Amino acid sequence: MPKVAVVMGSDSDLPLMKKCINVLKEFDVQFDVRIISAHRTPDVAADFAKGAAGKGYEVIIAAAGKAAHLAGVLAAMTTLPVIGVPVKSSTMDGMDSLLSMVQMPKGIPVATVAIDGAENAALLAIQILALKYPELSEKIAAYRDKMAQDVIKKDNEIRNEVF
Amino acid sequence: MPKVAVVMGSDSDLPLMKKCINVLKEFDVQFDVRIISAHRTPDVAADFAKGAAGKGYEVIIAAAGKAAHLAGVLAAMTTLPVIGVPVKSSTMDGMDSLLSMVQMPKGIPVATVAIDGAENAALLAIQILALKYPELSEKIAAYRDKMAQDVIKKDNEIRNEVF
Amino acid sequence: MPKVAVVMGSDSDLPLMKKCINVLKEFDVQFDVRIISAHRTPDVAADFAKGAAGKGYEVIIAAAGKAAHLAGVLAAMTTLPVIGVPVKSSTMDGMDSLLSMVQMPKGIPVATVAIDGAENAALLAIQILALKYPELSEKIAAYRDKMAQDVIKKDNEIRNEVF
Amino acid sequence: MPKVAVVMGSDSDLPLMKKCINVLKEFDVQFDVRIISAHRTPDVAADFAKGAAGKGYEVIIAAAGKAAHLAGVLAAMTTLPVIGVPVKSSTMDGMDSLLSMVQMPKGIPVATVAIDGAENAALLAIQILALKYPELSEKIAAYRDKMAQDVIKKDNEIRNEVF
Amino acid sequence: MPKVAVVMGSDSDLPLMKKCINVLKEFDVQFDVRIISAHRTPDVAADFAKGAAGKGYEVIIAAAGKAAHLAGVLAAMTTLPVIGVPVKSSTMDGMDSLLSMVQMPKGIPVATVAIDGAENAALLAIQILALKYPELSEKIAAYRDKMAQDVIKKDNEIRNEVF
Amino acid sequence: MPKVAVVMGSDSDLPLMKKCINVLKEFDVQFDVRIISAHRTPDVAADFAKGAAGKGYEVIIAAAGKAAHLAGVLAAMTTLPVIGVPVKSSTMDGMDSLLSMVQMPKGIPVATVAIDGAENAALLAIQILALKYPELSEKIAAYRDKMAQDVIKKDNEIRNEVF
Amino acid sequence: MPKVAVVMGSDSDLPLMKKCINVLKEFDVQFDVRIISAHRTPDVAADFAKGAAGKGYEVIIAAAGKAAHLAGVLAAMTTLPVIGVPVKSSTMDGMDSLLSMVQMPKGIPVATVAIDGAENAALLAIQILALKYPELSEKIAAYRDKMAQDVIKKDNEIRNEVF
Amino acid sequence: MPKVAVVMGSDSDLPLMKKCINVLKEFDVQFDVRIISAHRTPDVAADFAKGAAGKGYEVIIAAAGKAAHLAGVLAAMTTLPVIGVPVKSSTMDGMDSLLSMVQMPKGIPVATVAIDGAENAALLAIQILALKYPELSEKIAAYRDKMAQDVIKKDNEIRNEVF
Repeated sequence: MPKVAVVMGSDSDLPLMKKCINVLKEFDVQFDVRIISAHRTPDVAADFAKGAAGKGYEVIIAAAGKAAHLAGVLAAMTTLPVIGVPVKSSTMDGMDSLLSMVQMPKGIPVATVAIDGAENAALLAIQILALKYPELSEKIAAYRDKMAQDVIKKDNEIRNEVF
Repeated sequence: MPKVAVVMGSDSDLPLMKKCINVLKEFDVQFDVRIISAHRTPDVAADFAKGAAGKGYEVIIAAAGKAAHLAGVLAAMTTLPVIGVPVKSSTMDGMDSLLSMVQMPKGIPVATVAIDGAENAALLAIQILALKYPELSEKIAAYRDKMAQDVIKKDNEIRNEVF
Repeated sequence: MPKVAVVMGSDSDLPLMKKCINVLKEFDVQFDVRIISAHRTPDVAADFAKGAAGKGYEVIIAAAGKAAHLAGVLAAMTTLPVIGVPVKSSTMDGMDSLLSMVQMPKGIPVATVAIDGAENAALLAIQILALKYPELSEKIAAYRDKMAQDVIKKDNEIRNEVF
Repeated sequence: MPKVAVVMGSDSDLPLMKKCINVLKEFDVQFDVRIISAHRTPDVAADFAKGAAGKGYEVIIAAAGKAAHLAGVLAAMTTLPVIGVPVKSSTMDGMDSLLSMVQMPKGIPVATVAIDGAENAALLAIQILALKYPELSEKIAAYRDKMAQDVIKKDNEIRNEVF
Repeated sequence: MPKVAVVMGSDSDLPLMKKCINVLKEFDVQFDVRIISAHRTPDVAADFAKGAAGKGYEVIIAAAGKAAHLAGVLAAMTTLPVIGVPVKSSTMDGMDSLLSMVQMPKGIPVATVAIDGAENAALLAIQILALKYPELSEKIAAYRDKMAQDVIKKDNEIRNEVF
Repeated sequence: MPKVAVVMGSDSDLPLMKKCINVLKEFDVQFDVRIISAHRTPDVAADFAKGAAGKGYEVIIAAAGKAAHLAGVLAAMTTLPVIGVPVKSSTMDGMDSLLSMVQMPKGIPVATVAIDGAENAALLAIQILALKYPELSEKIAAYRDKMAQDVIKKDNEIRNEVF
Repeated sequence: MPKVAVVMGSDSDLPLMKKCINVLKEFDVQFDVRIISAHRTPDVAADFAKGAAGKGYEVIIAAAGKAAHLAGVLAAMTTLPVIGVPVKSSTMDGMDSLLSMVQMPKGIPVATVAIDGAENAALLAIQILALKYPELSEKIAAYRDKMAQDVIKKDNEIRNEVF
Repeated sequence: MPKVAVVMGSDSDLPLMKKCINVLKEFDVQFDVRIISAHRTPDVAADFAKGAAGKGYEVIIAAAGKAAHLAGVLAAMTTLPVIGVPVKSSTMDGMDSLLSMVQMPKGIPVATVAIDGAENAALLAIQILALKYPELSEKIAAYRDKMAQDVIKKDNEIRNEVF
């Protein structure tokens, strides 16, 4: 059974990351939620990352803001795919978080999604897991179909609206 | 056997993407190389993306520059994980490519790596594939070990250097 | 009779795009409003763009935010002029939307207006249509004259204000 | 017969704008080339813009760099569609030119293309003119088809390349 | 008697520019306030700028936002010094206004102050006028002295505060 | 006994800098608080900086916004280490303050912390002082341990939360 | 007789500032050239700025790069108008210099021109001096006329060119 | 005797950091040079940082580019002051490195200097060490005096130059 670790650098990231968690739940993907700071609890981060594969995690989602090292620090100590969610903080509109995550040097990639892109981090994790767990592929197809139907429904409504 | 599609928006991206190809070769991961433009050959792009899973591809790597829609356009028409490489072009230092790739709206993620991060796109693909093909995990571990040894060797040299 | 398609990537763009719609109405230009997502309903987007000329549309206005591919994706599948409205979203102050729209590669232009420039998209569409429908030229001249009179009236008021 | 004015703010823009001119020639669209500075020859700019429609111009293409006011200044004095080409200068990577062109206030739009997007300015002008001159539509379709064939040819070559 | 023209592109700039007006009043510098749009009333702008010196204006302060052409357009048609105030608008945090004002090409300078720097525009105008009207020099010295005393008073207070 | 000077360019910076002051108090580090403007009270700034070492200060913390010259101006007139806190103001999201502080030319460094990074300025001062005052090292170790325990406590809570 | 001080922060700015000097010579405006560093020679800077008016200077032009404090530091210690030239250095494309100069806080303005805008700094100085020295007004008018004729000549040439 | 660790993320940073090393040598400050990658050799980084104080290091200088985590990762595992040098790489003009270093979250500061500010990192280290080793204070004063004399000499030369 696939297992995702949802790691955030601070509990202030939880309201955002609940959107990620909700998507994982919707797809019945098992997950654990962790608060681990690359800077305040570096040893916990190292222990977690080094032990992640052994504990059955298959994908790690890491959310952090500002000089957002968390995803890169975890990625350096595991060969599991690490998905990074750059979190917008009180300054710089998330640009600092984005660049700190996505601009990883050669050798250690972080799969970065949009600033505050919590849902997409979950969906990307599920798309990755679907390679191994084909039943997830069908669920993604259904999820996308529903998304499309929602747009089409709104499109139909607006086409009939009188402006 | 895992199979990666390496798609680029223009043949001008080939010198960069050869670095991606070389990593895939080093890991004995099967791959196909394609030149598909989201804007100049949109139908080819749609056919490719919709048929990608059926043809046995498991991960798609898409490289493009400027208003870099390629990765997002492909991602919208497949549930395979799509890795985006934002390519630096003659203006804007790659910022336009990065934002056009990474800032995907809710529902359709692109796993974005660094600007011009061709090698990391390959490594991320391999880390993803390793979930299903465990022999790749060992190769990644060996690759990382070699990287570390290279750094340590240079570290040893510099520690003995007289400044 | 000229016909404009006003397409937006999400119904959350509607409050902004009503300003565009109101200008079109003020000029008695026929228009249809659509919600089409380049990423969530790519096939609808392709069908719409390929059929747009055949259905009598002469200009397409496309509004989208973040990695705003909609205008470019439509432009790739029609030879009608496509006007892009980059929509400011919750991060990046619209810069991501602007660059994703305006930095189109050689071959497929998008006529980009200001971030959140909904009225100007309508006015640009009307200026384009006026080449073929001369009565619109007079209306634009009158519209501009009214704009100028509004400024002049405010100028007169402020010149008489005692500070 | 359609007629385009290609205006640039300085003769240093000519090497770039020759790419625009070449596209217009390829489509047999009549054009005039002008060097008019919004700041150094403001009266010429005003005379040109006010008289443009009367002289038979149907679209104006304006290229300028830095605080690139040319397109906006012309647009303020004509109701013809004005296409802006932001030119990259020695600093700021074209960002100053882009923002000075695209961020036009409500009332006076400039149809902005990519930084240094000279060819696309021509193509956008032709797509606009094609509404009135249907023979241009066929030429655009052919042009796009050729572009697509070029990409497909390169795609075929690369698919057969041994890496 | 020195005379300053305070020109703004829109009446929405008035709350900001009242801070400029108040400084001019505090220094008993004569001024007129105008609302002139470079884009909506270009002829008024040209008439104003060309006639400004003749009407006794000695310095022009121009405030505008977004693609803020006003200062540059006026500067092109007068040899009076033109001070530009880039106004922050709803997007881009004033960066568009700043670059559109300050990046003037060779030949036509605009003396640009900070984004929303309304008071400093007035002070700069007064410093310029003081070259010709020495009584203003004394007033500036007194104004600065008062500013310094205000800071020193606050410094003294905070030095005695118990934290 | 170590002594830190906490200097801010304006009393509007006090709410932010109270966070800095509170950290210094928590570590029982002596400090003085000053309001000194590099631009409004340049002589006070010079006197302060030149006399700082003589008065027993060992580290200077300087907070300022916009064109934030304060830290650099002080650093130019003392050889004490100067820590700069770039303050976010009403425009530019703190980017102007950051670049004005951190980009000091060769010869005169400013130890710059994050935008609005008031606490970290205090902590950096304490880490610097700890080289000379070893009892501070123990306090920092304890402070960090407490920080780590706080994160671990939240981590434990979230691990037990049912989502 | 008007006198301008041309101050630069480093002799590496001289090639750029020679363009400024050449304009001043062309207008027969007296000038002195100084190398004064706000950070390396702060006392020289203070002495210079405080004594500038007394020595007959009427306008100060200050050029500096990176955290470009020079113009602001001088402006804080003189009531003469100070014109700032932000110099592009090896990183950040001049953005750091621009923001460090233009974003001056309330009370002490710097009249900022374009990045590397050396000629415009001279022209702005001359426009300022022309308020007091009317013969300069005529020279500026002639200079502008020549500029306009140069553009018109090039315009005429290009109009006759066969493309 | 003071001891500085000069750590860089890659041997490609050596040419830049030799400027740092040369300053340390000029001040007779003992130093060791290390190549340690936060991402490729995370365990070496942890061992180094945790053992740094015990080995007698008093200040750590860390240089890295792109998503420059090195300084922050080391700072998280030592209470020694860590000075960060953001290194400009092939894209983004050093902005990614700067933000990744300076925007550290509350608790773990990095004393960041300018992009490519290798000499200033050394000088800052020396200013910090001078608190404990007073003989360094005199050396810094002499160094600054020499810098000032160099500027003054160039100032004298340029004042006598005929332009």
